[in-house]
Amino acid sequence: MFRDKNIPVQAEIIAIGNEVVSGLIQDTNAKYLSQQLHLLGINVSRITAVGDDGGSISSVLESALRRVDIIITTGGLGSTHDDITKDVLARFFKSKMKVDEKVLAMLESAFKVREREVPEGVRRQCEVPESAEVLYNEKGTAPGLLFKLDEKKIFSLPGVPLEMEYLFNKYIYPNLLKLQRGVIVHRIIKMVGLTEASLWEKFGPVDPLEKLVTVASLPSFLEVKVRLSCFEDSLDFAKSRINKAENMVMESLGGWVYGKDNETLEGKVGELVKKKRSTLAVAESCTGGLLGHRLTQVPGSSDYFLEGVTTYSNEAKVNRLGINSKLIREYGAVSEEVAIAMAEGIRRTSGSDIGLSITGVAGPGASYAKPSGTVFIAVSDLRGSHCEVFRFHNDRHKNKEKSAQAALDLLRRWLLNSIKRHI
Amino acid sequence: MFRDKNIPVQAEIIAIGNEVVSGLIQDTNAKYLSQQLHLLGINVSRITAVGDDGGSISSVLESALRRVDIIITTGGLGSTHDDITKDVLARFFKSKMKVDEKVLAMLESAFKVREREVPEGVRRQCEVPESAEVLYNEKGTAPGLLFKLDEKKIFSLPGVPLEMEYLFNKYIYPNLLKLQRGVIVHRIIKMVGLTEASLWEKFGPVDPLEKLVTVASLPSFLEVKVRLSCFEDSLDFAKSRINKAENMVMESLGGWVYGKDNETLEGKVGELVKKKRSTLAVAESCTGGLLGHRLTQVPGSSDYFLEGVTTYSNEAKVNRLGINSKLIREYGAVSEEVAIAMAEGIRRTSGSDIGLSITGVAGPGASYAKPSGTVFIAVSDLRGSHCEVFRFHNDRHKNKEKSAQAALDLLRRWLLNSIKRHI
Repeated sequence: MFRDKNIPVQAEIIAIGNEVVSGLIQDTNAKYLSQQLHLLGINVSRITAVGDDGGSISSVLESALRRVDIIITTGGLGSTHDDITKDVLARFFKSKMKVDEKVLAMLESAFKVREREVPEGVRRQCEVPESAEVLYNEKGTAPGLLFKLDEKKIFSLPGVPLEMEYLFNKYIYPNLLKLQRGVIVHRIIKMVGLTEASLWEKFGPVDPLEKLVTVASLPSFLEVKVRLSCFEDSLDFAKSRINKAENMVMESLGGWVYGKDNETLEGKVGELVKKKRSTLAVAESCTGGLLGHRLTQVPGSSDYFLEGVTTYSNEAKVNRLGINSKLIREYGAVSEEVAIAMAEGIRRTSGSDIGLSITGVAGPGASYAKPSGTVFIAVSDLRGSHCEVFRFHNDRHKNKEKSAQAALDLLRRWLLNSIKRHI
Repeated sequence: MFRDKNIPVQAEIIAIGNEVVSGLIQDTNAKYLSQQLHLLGINVSRITAVGDDGGSISSVLESALRRVDIIITTGGLGSTHDDITKDVLARFFKSKMKVDEKVLAMLESAFKVREREVPEGVRRQCEVPESAEVLYNEKGTAPGLLFKLDEKKIFSLPGVPLEMEYLFNKYIYPNLLKLQRGVIVHRIIKMVGLTEASLWEKFGPVDPLEKLVTVASLPSFLEVKVRLSCFEDSLDFAKSRINKAENMVMESLGGWVYGKDNETLEGKVGELVKKKRSTLAVAESCTGGLLGHRLTQVPGSSDYFLEGVTTYSNEAKVNRLGINSKLIREYGAVSEEVAIAMAEGIRRTSGSDIGLSITGVAGPGASYAKPSGTVFIAVSDLRGSHCEVFRFHNDRHKNKEKSAQAALDLLRRWLLNSIKRHI
């Protein structure tokens, strides 16, 4: 579909910092800004990361200005010796520096609270390019900057995510809201237990879906997401197209879907437990507490989550959960029998309605008779008990993450009465 | 220091995918590749992310080829409809497509194991540009590609991190090892309990350090890292400079440092516990199991970690840890008194040498008398018990992460006999 009037406004993001290009830290600011700009119907067409090098920063800025109307830079505004973004921008826009009295006053009052003088390096934060608008930063010492060139806007934000997000929401979001020429609506549909390839195979021909929306599948080692996007003049029209497309996906893949958009697997599980007015307790071994951690990420989980027990040693399995030590000797701590005894044991000893358990070999290496990545997950409630076995790989950290994810999904399917053999 | 002969080889990374520029997923491949290239003495000067758009991909590639000798692209090699990287590269390098029989055989054998035909979309993975060397991918269906142009090399890798890393290590690392003209050595020094600003203030003038090495401080919400880097002709010379610089940092900041390079806080804590031939058990509340999860990230932690108990409800605190319910009524579940009773209780009920506990208000909002982010952390062993209070903010997820980090660091300081008031 060709839209001559409604091409979204284009933006670019420039992440500045040796620590980003050298791979020392993961830049997450660009992802945040892209998402936020998309919600404004502004399309990020390019993200560039460069080091703390004046020539590179100027050259990226110059070519970005030829392509797009909105540029946001992050990083290099701190008060340490390698922060040069402000000086580079001042030279680029041929602007002298001046002292901003409000920034100076903010710095002084911030340090007065701590009964300290403003350190000399930090004091220089009050020097700003004359031609820039100052974006006052209550969350840190580095002010943001806004330069205007003809119709174009160049925002410069500090690299600390908290400060970057604060200034974006305080200054940039309201500023860009006025530019909005159309609406992009996204819907993300989240699935556990399918690979990207098997997903599209089950879905069938994708053309009818693509006539409605732009489609992307986004696999990770824990789950697959399908993203539907639609750019339209009106929010209502975009939403109606997205809803139609979502229905098409749900018709063929609904059984695998646990939620959409910002919904989390632990959040959906929590909803299901709450809806049944049940309480939940967990018994973990190889995951070391990760399952309880995931479940308690949900605000209000204390309404249904009673407790978790990580019985790492065999003694703890016996003492905390009342598991018969013969069972462990006979079948091994990593077995269907012990997984079920753990789920039943945590339910009995905690007094919860539902018990969920994980026992497995996290790895690396196999110190038991079972290979690394072998994980048994069991659930128990009034209806009975059920166990599934999973065979992951030899990566300790990923095995823990996958085990917790699989346990949450098993509980989800159990609560929906849709337990079937895992594929 | 000017090095005319020893300027490192320069590389650029191009991440391809609408899901990256739209902020739907976090690209982590560029960070991995930058780190690996640095270890080879190759400097990544720019990372660019663009969408699945032929014009943009070609234009980024063209300008990168003007600047550097090594280019690695990631993404867009999959078998779904929006994967266009292979076709774009073929056009860019004016190369026809041919069938690679080895790729075809690999696909057929992979699907034969699953007793399935190769799907039509996946079968097209065996078509590769004639002028490219094929990087055979045993971890997935998309082969990588290597194009050569004069002295320049352009590698194209799939975007799935597992496959990308596999092909990098199998083909690119050995290929680039030959180019190595000098050595970059990094040392990362990791600290908990200091801000970036307070760190440099305590350190004093940075000039003597910068005469030896390049210095960067890398703050995150959990800790601050200082990175020292040194590029030299010989590994020995680089290492000796780095060691001198490290000693300077340790002299002024040693008390805050928990480890270096790939060492983790949980790993260092584990070493200390093991050295004392002690055993450890933890009692958590607001962290929901995260502390146990962190401790069990360490391979071999089952040698000293006996168990964890997440007593989320007050009943669980009483039943599992034998805490007097009067104590909870009198002081509240989030109090110094209860934190210490939890640490002593887990020690007593598990039979461990050391007990570590966390109780706090994760938030959001304050449902107790204490504001969100108030966290008490206690440790108990033969020597006695000790509690510290922390005041974090109103973000549930960050409060949990910060609490677990603070608990690990408290235990570290306790085991080193260096407990002092937290700053």
